[in-house]
Amino acid sequence: MGDGRYRIPRDGQNDHSREQAEIRRDFLLEQTGTELTHTGKFSIDPGVLPGNIENFIGIVQMPVGVAGPIEINGEHAQGRFYVPLATTEGTLVASYSRGMRVINECGGVKTTVVEQYMQRAPAFIFSDAREAREFGLWLDENMAGIRAAAESTTSIGKLIHLEQWSVSRIRYVRFNYTTGDAAGQNMVGKATLAACEWIKAHYPGDCEYLLSGNMDTDKKHSHLNMLHSRGKRVIAEVVLKKDIMRKLMKVDTWVMARSSVLANMGAMLAGAAYNGPHSANGIASLFIATGQDEANVVESHAGLLSHELLANGDLYLSVTLPSLIVATYGGGTGLPTQRECLELLGCYGKGKANKFAEIVAATVLAGDISLACAVIAGHWVSSHDKFGRNK
Amino acid sequence: MGDGRYRIPRDGQNDHSREQAEIRRDFLLEQTGTELTHTGKFSIDPGVLPGNIENFIGIVQMPVGVAGPIEINGEHAQGRFYVPLATTEGTLVASYSRGMRVINECGGVKTTVVEQYMQRAPAFIFSDAREAREFGLWLDENMAGIRAAAESTTSIGKLIHLEQWSVSRIRYVRFNYTTGDAAGQNMVGKATLAACEWIKAHYPGDCEYLLSGNMDTDKKHSHLNMLHSRGKRVIAEVVLKKDIMRKLMKVDTWVMARSSVLANMGAMLAGAAYNGPHSANGIASLFIATGQDEANVVESHAGLLSHELLANGDLYLSVTLPSLIVATYGGGTGLPTQRECLELLGCYGKGKANKFAEIVAATVLAGDISLACAVIAGHWVSSHDKFGRNK
Amino acid sequence: MGDGRYRIPRDGQNDHSREQAEIRRDFLLEQTGTELTHTGKFSIDPGVLPGNIENFIGIVQMPVGVAGPIEINGEHAQGRFYVPLATTEGTLVASYSRGMRVINECGGVKTTVVEQYMQRAPAFIFSDAREAREFGLWLDENMAGIRAAAESTTSIGKLIHLEQWSVSRIRYVRFNYTTGDAAGQNMVGKATLAACEWIKAHYPGDCEYLLSGNMDTDKKHSHLNMLHSRGKRVIAEVVLKKDIMRKLMKVDTWVMARSSVLANMGAMLAGAAYNGPHSANGIASLFIATGQDEANVVESHAGLLSHELLANGDLYLSVTLPSLIVATYGGGTGLPTQRECLELLGCYGKGKANKFAEIVAATVLAGDISLACAVIAGHWVSSHDKFGRNK
Amino acid sequence: MGDGRYRIPRDGQNDHSREQAEIRRDFLLEQTGTELTHTGKFSIDPGVLPGNIENFIGIVQMPVGVAGPIEINGEHAQGRFYVPLATTEGTLVASYSRGMRVINECGGVKTTVVEQYMQRAPAFIFSDAREAREFGLWLDENMAGIRAAAESTTSIGKLIHLEQWSVSRIRYVRFNYTTGDAAGQNMVGKATLAACEWIKAHYPGDCEYLLSGNMDTDKKHSHLNMLHSRGKRVIAEVVLKKDIMRKLMKVDTWVMARSSVLANMGAMLAGAAYNGPHSANGIASLFIATGQDEANVVESHAGLLSHELLANGDLYLSVTLPSLIVATYGGGTGLPTQRECLELLGCYGKGKANKFAEIVAATVLAGDISLACAVIAGHWVSSHDKFGRNK
Repeated sequence: MGDGRYRIPRDGQNDHSREQAEIRRDFLLEQTGTELTHTGKFSIDPGVLPGNIENFIGIVQMPVGVAGPIEINGEHAQGRFYVPLATTEGTLVASYSRGMRVINECGGVKTTVVEQYMQRAPAFIFSDAREAREFGLWLDENMAGIRAAAESTTSIGKLIHLEQWSVSRIRYVRFNYTTGDAAGQNMVGKATLAACEWIKAHYPGDCEYLLSGNMDTDKKHSHLNMLHSRGKRVIAEVVLKKDIMRKLMKVDTWVMARSSVLANMGAMLAGAAYNGPHSANGIASLFIATGQDEANVVESHAGLLSHELLANGDLYLSVTLPSLIVATYGGGTGLPTQRECLELLGCYGKGKANKFAEIVAATVLAGDISLACAVIAGHWVSSHDKFGRNK
Repeated sequence: MGDGRYRIPRDGQNDHSREQAEIRRDFLLEQTGTELTHTGKFSIDPGVLPGNIENFIGIVQMPVGVAGPIEINGEHAQGRFYVPLATTEGTLVASYSRGMRVINECGGVKTTVVEQYMQRAPAFIFSDAREAREFGLWLDENMAGIRAAAESTTSIGKLIHLEQWSVSRIRYVRFNYTTGDAAGQNMVGKATLAACEWIKAHYPGDCEYLLSGNMDTDKKHSHLNMLHSRGKRVIAEVVLKKDIMRKLMKVDTWVMARSSVLANMGAMLAGAAYNGPHSANGIASLFIATGQDEANVVESHAGLLSHELLANGDLYLSVTLPSLIVATYGGGTGLPTQRECLELLGCYGKGKANKFAEIVAATVLAGDISLACAVIAGHWVSSHDKFGRNK
Repeated sequence: MGDGRYRIPRDGQNDHSREQAEIRRDFLLEQTGTELTHTGKFSIDPGVLPGNIENFIGIVQMPVGVAGPIEINGEHAQGRFYVPLATTEGTLVASYSRGMRVINECGGVKTTVVEQYMQRAPAFIFSDAREAREFGLWLDENMAGIRAAAESTTSIGKLIHLEQWSVSRIRYVRFNYTTGDAAGQNMVGKATLAACEWIKAHYPGDCEYLLSGNMDTDKKHSHLNMLHSRGKRVIAEVVLKKDIMRKLMKVDTWVMARSSVLANMGAMLAGAAYNGPHSANGIASLFIATGQDEANVVESHAGLLSHELLANGDLYLSVTLPSLIVATYGGGTGLPTQRECLELLGCYGKGKANKFAEIVAATVLAGDISLACAVIAGHWVSSHDKFGRNK
Repeated sequence: MGDGRYRIPRDGQNDHSREQAEIRRDFLLEQTGTELTHTGKFSIDPGVLPGNIENFIGIVQMPVGVAGPIEINGEHAQGRFYVPLATTEGTLVASYSRGMRVINECGGVKTTVVEQYMQRAPAFIFSDAREAREFGLWLDENMAGIRAAAESTTSIGKLIHLEQWSVSRIRYVRFNYTTGDAAGQNMVGKATLAACEWIKAHYPGDCEYLLSGNMDTDKKHSHLNMLHSRGKRVIAEVVLKKDIMRKLMKVDTWVMARSSVLANMGAMLAGAAYNGPHSANGIASLFIATGQDEANVVESHAGLLSHELLANGDLYLSVTLPSLIVATYGGGTGLPTQRECLELLGCYGKGKANKFAEIVAATVLAGDISLACAVIAGHWVSSHDKFGRNK
């Protein structure tokens, strides 16, 4: 590979002009014979792109459909919302819309953001476990200095608390921040680096570290995130009325409760990150439409769907998303089409991240209701009496 | 919400024409005050969209950068590849390119698809655990009939084997298929429904089922998928040469091995779905660029990064992706820009899915090398001697 | 430590005579000043001990209580059983007895063994992932020879099937055997070693292996065991009658169903190996009383407690123990007191392992009912109406 | 079962006299035909048993062997220890002894207790998620009152901090205590009940709770315990010298490092609670010998075995046991033989729990070294050069 002619032209790797993009497409045509005709066509001004991409060659056009409206009774999101979903999976938009309709008929969905943090988690290594433990105590005693160092790098991020774990002679430390309306991964990375350097300078012992020891856990699902909320922990709740479910969905709430237990057992046995039908579909589609970091779907899709059959036959249903990572400014949110989709939800800019998180959770709940009912109505034949009702 | 005027115009929910999309955008403007100017501009013919989306309102424009080339020695992917990545996360493309360069200098990456299945997993419920067990035996004895029923619905899908689990009085059954070059979720859903109906008609006992009992596990990460390969199980391997790593990445392979153990411990402690730095970034970006089902990033990002420090100081490194769900036709792969990106890789159409899977795995490995080195080089200060080398 | 005088006298490490035990106790007295008076008193003939222990110094006296009777409607265990529990935890025996009484009043517990395997899982390492994959195919094609080699070492064990996983350039292979009425870990270890040596001799390539690559997974809980049954997979079921529960336990079945969902959510969030109250208590106590390998409690305690509120208000409840490792001969089962406890259950000797497994599962279910009711009756105050019934 | 004649004689369920035990044995003989001859023979005074068991019928005699000595450089355990192991698994004692010998030759094992808590975790349920969140804030603001209530029930236990999780409309709260030298499960149960009742009386809203919502997680392994230390978090470390390993164990440290990575991958793929060879064996044997709660083996066996090949070829090895639940007084520790075994270690009574925890961790490390070497030396054929060294 010593031959430089296979290299993508490097002049202006961060030059996002239409001209430079065309030069790269021409190079690719020469190398691979592939014309990127549609990819090269776009309405947006590439001048907005720096900071979002390198070696820019064009635009992928992903279709957007609109679901809803959905009636949300949140603390931040209140009213009717039309939800833009970017997807190429047929029936997805229609199915989410169906779930939204039944939610509306039942009085809307209640949404609550209960917690929010963003993390960076360095690992500090020592000569033995005892030093690692002592270091942990020292950290607790020096939070003021650590916090000051971390927050010196950001006007928005606040270092809230540290979590610490000793394994072997390593001290894993998870720095938990609030990050305003940004997702904040970069913000907390910088802040934590500054904190680590402060620690290294002040700790009265040797102190080596790796800026991430995988306890963040960034860009991957983890049980830790499920427990300790990476991004926002959001809950959406609804009481599905027995009569409306029967009328609109042809589903009995008692059967729905039974099948939820069955799905819970399946999820536990499978070791699944989510015990409901398909959180990832709604999240991925909303994320792409609104310029979220698309890789964060993996953390965000984890959660717990919880049900309770009420004495009157109605079914309380809620979804808890413990690691929903969203932003309403920065990153891809400012790109023209993505921004429009955020604006459609009234969620572009500062002060909107909680509102947006509530809408995501409400959407997930709508999608799960719709799919759960489809599975039940189609295939869970009604002679369930035999195995339950009449015993 | 009884008021129909808030409803999205339903005439032609599946009408994807520019006119109908405009009608919907006008409705949204009226309802929300938001103009979807850029979203309404696109070069592609919306006539290609039916089957991909409903309530179509326009297009999200997601920028694409190109990384590479990367030299791949696969069974299906052979040669140099320029990898299109759709992302809004700055530095992502540059970082993957950096990893690809070091791989090339080390002789390229070897890729292998080792297994592939797609599943649908109904749950059958009985009056007691004993019946559920007997039912399982009956299934084994009647595989010919079950297979014939399942395969009657598809010219491509082949039912390979069933996995079964008894929990309580439920028998969870996971139908494992091969699905050619399609991801195949819908294909196996239809086939399994047909199989279930055949079972119901022929089983000499009562037999109720739910078409999915969450043991698929569709659209969510699960430990089960990690074990039993939902989609393709792909492995990418490279031997990182000590000298090249030092020269290009400023990283010592011995330090890289140490930090890998540390990251493994962190991942185990966190209960993470992946023990390397960031599989999800490359997968999500490639998926969006090439029209994959974007929600499948959650299954696909799971995996194991494995290392071995060789006696000569070189570092063997491999990534195993056990649940990589990809397609090279059907779904979103045929949309104009997505198709172009697949063509850029020589991966559009039938007979290309394994090739594409190999490219994804190679890309993930490149990104992990790059990020691991960045973390180490920046922050893992070289006085590691003190805690390791000189002890 | 070069000084041999600190060494435990090694003459006759396997001499279990009272005299030799006394010599060792005297040595310990000299070294530590501790007299092992009671430890040195026992009624059993130490001549039965070889094969069970080395450096024998005496006997720990663990008290045994009896719970029950419990009425079991199993395939192997049928009738009333008095269950010996060796424990030092006060209330444990009384609580299990209470649960047994309510089960009896409800008509007894139904038990079923649905599957059984014992495993040894070597890891084979190759030069790359492709060779590892090809090796796996070769294994499938050579099952006859592999099976013959494995079974040549045992008159009881039968090699049923192999499970295989590719990670990196490693092929993990889990050999699944049936082992009659022995737990069988040693039996399958020897058989698998013979199989591996046969493979090594016949595989037309290089083939190195480690006899265990941790996919067994021996002496530790694992999700894999939960899925694929290490030992016996046993299910115990009962229908708890609404009236009896109210009368005997002061608990409403509707409340019990609600609290089960709540406990399921907790268990999922905690990442627990078991979602019920306390399987480990009954299993550990029964294991010690009956000479089971006490370390296998860790595999055996995993499981799923599943409930269903029936239309008439009764509560169907079942426990599934997927990895219950038990034996009725060999190991510690032949020691005098342990044998007596097995005989009390009619479970000593060959042909009794399934019967014993059913009794263990029934006991676990009894204990969970008792503890769940205790928690609810004491503390789940009855004004639950407010949050559920009246909504 | 209405027939009372099958009932175990209830007069004096808590009468542990030899006479009453004999009456029960006679009853069992009459019911089952089984004579409990040896079970009825014991040297200890049953007057010590109340609080440990009900329906006492006799004693199981479990053989004890002694391993060691092992040289421990702990903060609490210092010097040579002879370790009593109660087991019926042949070779176990010999194998642990072998590992202890190699540790001694390498200079002994360093042990550290890094953290310790015992928990009870009630679940509070509210009418919606928002109330549950507000309740959590109220708890934080009222820690003084909560702590006072909790600690009013115990002279030893101290309430250190609460952990809280919102799921659905539930607030799971994990009360973390220190409990001196007792394991403390009952102590913290009583304290938490008092705290809950205080909360219920003072919280200015409705407040229903279940005393355990499975987030404790008592008597079961959980990922949560691995993260947050139920019982003691203990670490044992050793540097295995290359020459000694070769001489005593016939194992190359470089090979041992490689096989550790392989075992780590296996454990991650299996979803195992422990990534080393067999922590449960040593823990179970020590627990039975010393009167620990035998069911706690399931929490205690979890952990991480971590290695690092040093530049000089020596191998640093450590085991981290995050949930080791031990006591040196109370429960079964005071029974005569169990007490003697604790005394043999200098660990009976108050102020000894940390010392005992260190000994357990050191023992686990010894056993893992021994078994890992046995697997490698026997079966990991030395031509590993081919796949690693010479590449």
